[in-house]
Amino acid sequence: MIFRTATIDDVPAIVALLANDKLGSQREVNTTPLPQTYLQAFNLIDSDPNQELIVMEKESIIGTFQLTYIPYLTYQGGIRAQIEAARIHENHRGKGLGQKMIVWAIARAKDRGAHVIQLTTDKQRPEAIRFYEKLGFRSTHEGMKLHF
Amino acid sequence: MIFRTATIDDVPAIVALLANDKLGSQREVNTTPLPQTYLQAFNLIDSDPNQELIVMEKESIIGTFQLTYIPYLTYQGGIRAQIEAARIHENHRGKGLGQKMIVWAIARAKDRGAHVIQLTTDKQRPEAIRFYEKLGFRSTHEGMKLHF
Repeated sequence: MIFRTATIDDVPAIVALLANDKLGSQREVNTTPLPQTYLQAFNLIDSDPNQELIVMEKESIIGTFQLTYIPYLTYQGGIRAQIEAARIHENHRGKGLGQKMIVWAIARAKDRGAHVIQLTTDKQRPEAIRFYEKLGFRSTHEGMKLHF
Repeated sequence: MIFRTATIDDVPAIVALLANDKLGSQREVNTTPLPQTYLQAFNLIDSDPNQELIVMEKESIIGTFQLTYIPYLTYQGGIRAQIEAARIHENHRGKGLGQKMIVWAIARAKDRGAHVIQLTTDKQRPEAIRFYEKLGFRSTHEGMKLHF
């Protein structure tokens, strides 16, 4: 099993993971070919050194997440790492792979000099909240969103 | 009153705002001169087109926040705007300036093509949660952090 940066050829497999989810199925469009907006977004991510779109692969792609590094003045000018869009393929759940993936992300964020790693998870995913708490995350903040 | 992008000369005033806070006072070092790490972080922010460190000014700096634009594959390849490090000077609170500032941030995020604006706020700041809810934000997510 390897972790690597995604290429544009991985985008369909990643979108399939994002769409195969009770929340994701309502907001993604997993057609062949994919809407161009996914490829445009991939190019923005791929050209930005503060974005890392990662895939976990074992023969095929079985997991994905995106890491973002954000420089702030807070915490004496610290870098924060942020996890988003983390998914494990439905055929590979319940085997500890999600834990392996997030442990890898934590190590990567430390390597990049972050002082904290953060994420928000929908309150409709209580199992995700427990999963992250077991890995050491603390639910100290409200995650607030305003959709346009 | 104007909103503008911060310059390096504004960093001491911004750090003073960040430090003058029950949580910020424990994590910032507001000395003269400032620790170099703040200026290094400013340069990272200033050179990144996806970061906007904004000050609200009326004779002096009375407010600040940082906007970050993050490209994701989720939501069909959408841009998210994220607010962090929002503060109003203690002498200027209770006058609706915080609301003006966040309303400006929301408009700015829309101009930049974001489909959502998000933030996390410490659960120790219930007044901040109510403030953002009045502006249309919904507390749908847990904000989870792991400090190194």
